[in-house]
Amino acid sequence: MKKAVVVVSGGMDSVTLLYHTLNKGYECYAISFDYGQRHKRELKMAEATCTKLLVPHKIIDVKSINQLLPGSSLTDKSVDVPKGLYSDNTMKATVVPNRNMVFLSIASAYALSIGARVVALGIHAGDHAIYPDCREEFLNLCNKTVNAGNLWFKPIKFYAPYLHKSKGEIVADGLKLDVDYKLTHTCYVGKNQPCGKCGSCTERIEAFFANNVKDPLYKDVREWAIAVNHVESLKKGGRK
Amino acid sequence: MKKAVVVVSGGMDSVTLLYHTLNKGYECYAISFDYGQRHKRELKMAEATCTKLLVPHKIIDVKSINQLLPGSSLTDKSVDVPKGLYSDNTMKATVVPNRNMVFLSIASAYALSIGARVVALGIHAGDHAIYPDCREEFLNLCNKTVNAGNLWFKPIKFYAPYLHKSKGEIVADGLKLDVDYKLTHTCYVGKNQPCGKCGSCTERIEAFFANNVKDPLYKDVREWAIAVNHVESLKKGGRK
Repeated sequence: MKKAVVVVSGGMDSVTLLYHTLNKGYECYAISFDYGQRHKRELKMAEATCTKLLVPHKIIDVKSINQLLPGSSLTDKSVDVPKGLYSDNTMKATVVPNRNMVFLSIASAYALSIGARVVALGIHAGDHAIYPDCREEFLNLCNKTVNAGNLWFKPIKFYAPYLHKSKGEIVADGLKLDVDYKLTHTCYVGKNQPCGKCGSCTERIEAFFANNVKDPLYKDVREWAIAVNHVESLKKGGRK
Repeated sequence: MKKAVVVVSGGMDSVTLLYHTLNKGYECYAISFDYGQRHKRELKMAEATCTKLLVPHKIIDVKSINQLLPGSSLTDKSVDVPKGLYSDNTMKATVVPNRNMVFLSIASAYALSIGARVVALGIHAGDHAIYPDCREEFLNLCNKTVNAGNLWFKPIKFYAPYLHKSKGEIVADGLKLDVDYKLTHTCYVGKNQPCGKCGSCTERIEAFFANNVKDPLYKDVREWAIAVNHVESLKKGGRK
């Protein structure tokens, strides 16, 4: 069976991707990165999903790079997590320089090492505007670079099926694949229950709402209604 | 002053590069990688050189990636270090897939984060034949990839002044710059004194011999003569 390395953060996009890639018939090997994220629960959800799906899972500790990257709100507790709908400015505070390239380089090393020909990535359309390292041009260059640097190995191919899909479309795919979204984590604040207010929660609520489905992370319909109403009111107030 | 991030392993090439880059007038920031190398002394030499030159030095722990990379002789103690002059086959046993790209991605993250416009690399001509990730084509692609992925930041430039130089020419540069080669480590076996027999030692001996200079790591002229004679006899016997 053809092998694929799947980069699984434990968020809804990458967990859906894992189901998707398994469904395509690949023998999947999951890889996650511990970069000292506040939302450590993500990693636990990646682990729980892989256990459920019987997929081998490696967590790579890259916390050491944080000493090079001061001032990111995802790792530096002195910086606030931006609230509300993402816009250019609030989202920039979550950018760790070159983070994706570090992750892709390591995931590619894994693929080369086990003879996988595919590295699957959960990057989606919503990422492009803010993160240049989530754009097709970057991915193609990065993919070329890996292969140019590893001529002794069979070339690998980056596979990013959600590159031009919205988060709503990802949830639509996931619902078809029967993804267990209880075993995912999205909130940047990092508590067990989603805060329902940070940029990540807001996007996730919109994605489930677009599919007319309650996000299973919200206990009941009442909690869900509160979360949806909050997002709707933010939208009326305009994006900050 | 313009800033440069200098990748310093602690070997003779990268330490010479640090002197070279300082001499070019850059404010240098050194970065080293702890990938669980047997020759841990390298890192100590990187540290010692940086202390001597008053250069800030970061050591990034990437040992976690070893769980993805079975069978490399530099990290896996069950695999022998190849002895004698390097040839394609013996050198291949020292290849960690995509290693350079992982290192370059992290060094670039550092550069972006501190506003350095240059990432200096000690790659030299002898590396090209075996390591595709030490070739100009790879470096150019990798450099492009970093900049494509980080449009919010000022572009950086890889600087590899020894890309087309031999190790002998690097030593020649270093002698002009008064490099303290006592604070470098090259031997793959990883003891304090060079073994004088592994591929790395052999290359280093040749480089100093080409400059008619004794390598200061060898205690006295007698030890040095033994080392040189060993290399000469290997050459007569042909490369394995």
